[in-house]
Amino acid sequence: MDAIRKITLIGAGNVAWHLGKVFLQNGLQIHQVWSRTGKHAAELAEELNCSHTNKLEEVDSHTDLYIIAVSDDAIASVAEGIPERNIPVVHTSGATPISIFKDAGYGKYGIFYPLQTLSAKKPVDFSKIPLSIECSGEDFEKQLKFIANKVSENVFTLDSGQRRIVHVAAVFACNFSNYMFMIAEDLLEKNDIPFEVLKPLIKETAGKIEHSSPYESQTGPAVRHDYRIIENHLDMLKNEEKYREIYNLLTQNILKVLEKK
Amino acid sequence: MDAIRKITLIGAGNVAWHLGKVFLQNGLQIHQVWSRTGKHAAELAEELNCSHTNKLEEVDSHTDLYIIAVSDDAIASVAEGIPERNIPVVHTSGATPISIFKDAGYGKYGIFYPLQTLSAKKPVDFSKIPLSIECSGEDFEKQLKFIANKVSENVFTLDSGQRRIVHVAAVFACNFSNYMFMIAEDLLEKNDIPFEVLKPLIKETAGKIEHSSPYESQTGPAVRHDYRIIENHLDMLKNEEKYREIYNLLTQNILKVLEKK
Repeated sequence: MDAIRKITLIGAGNVAWHLGKVFLQNGLQIHQVWSRTGKHAAELAEELNCSHTNKLEEVDSHTDLYIIAVSDDAIASVAEGIPERNIPVVHTSGATPISIFKDAGYGKYGIFYPLQTLSAKKPVDFSKIPLSIECSGEDFEKQLKFIANKVSENVFTLDSGQRRIVHVAAVFACNFSNYMFMIAEDLLEKNDIPFEVLKPLIKETAGKIEHSSPYESQTGPAVRHDYRIIENHLDMLKNEEKYREIYNLLTQNILKVLEKK
Repeated sequence: MDAIRKITLIGAGNVAWHLGKVFLQNGLQIHQVWSRTGKHAAELAEELNCSHTNKLEEVDSHTDLYIIAVSDDAIASVAEGIPERNIPVVHTSGATPISIFKDAGYGKYGIFYPLQTLSAKKPVDFSKIPLSIECSGEDFEKQLKFIANKVSENVFTLDSGQRRIVHVAAVFACNFSNYMFMIAEDLLEKNDIPFEVLKPLIKETAGKIEHSSPYESQTGPAVRHDYRIIENHLDMLKNEEKYREIYNLLTQNILKVLEKK
């Protein structure tokens, strides 16, 4: 097995920034950075001590791996735009299938998907981030696992179908739970109550997943079948029609799930 | 101001258990425990080194404060059942108004509402739990704040209207966000993917509220107006009608909120 030592980053956003940093820290070399925006490519290249370009036709082939870390919409066209097809290539998205690489004519390809929300230049302990990989073949899987294990303690394989499921599940677990926090904040602010008062409760709620399943941890008026409180809450939300609709739908569903419990 | 030194716990559930423990630790005395279920009263009384009863008519008046920590449905009838009206009384609920005490004929009364989900016999750092209080008068407020400040670093006053808002906001921020975790877990399990893979992401999502508002932290396909991914997800959920309905409603709302952004 030829070890991957030199990596080319296609993209200069949050994911590319974090991957570049953590690869360097773990003894790998970044060979080149491409970004459509020359300034972004140059800035990241400077941090990673490598060359840069904003022209896909200048992405060179003296490298061991292309990592495409761009928005889902751009992955296919960027993959088409790279001149060389004989270098292994991966993308970092949960939502785009592996098949786009075959369609673009690559021989060795895969997925390198970190399951985390990576914020701009906010350092994270990458070793704790689950890394899901998928590969076109066994040889390349060994190569990719080698670099994955260098940066994360939690590497596992998912096929494209499973990765799509993880992606939609993450929308519920993260984007929608954050939206629930947002509704709470809005209701409090409209009544001059600082959001601070709910923070310990939110932390405890998220902390519980360490010890018990969300199914076991579910609490609240719907679980207690406390219809008087539910009616009270719906009445309080009568001037917040959207929130009322969400409250009602989620409550009805929790009531149904727990009938089966 | 007469300091409160001896407390009677009306109820022997999670809230009574935690309050009893933390009062004892902070130099207050528990005088008596009442529970409808004699065994529960006896068990908690043994831990708190005090007397107990399962008869409301035996709740005695050689005490400085009654704390009613029973389910919302039972608060009014328990308050009615205590023979003495000249001892100050509080309840610990976010959802029941203070007026029930006036209706029952008490002179000094209030609310002592810890904003936390207290699990059975799982010790918590009570000093970090926000305690919301409300009182019938200024004298009693001073007395109640005195014991509140002994056990929590975060004591504040809310009137009954505000407390109702906090309670409904907590349903969104905690019960509903946990339900989002539950949906994610269900989707993953049906596809043989361990829920473990999402835990770091959930922790990070909840952790973000420390540094930025949920409004600023909102991410995901709806925020990016990524209609292709949204359509994909809705298509994947076509056999999970309830989840599809929730996905659609929440996404439509996030799209609308962020139009205004």
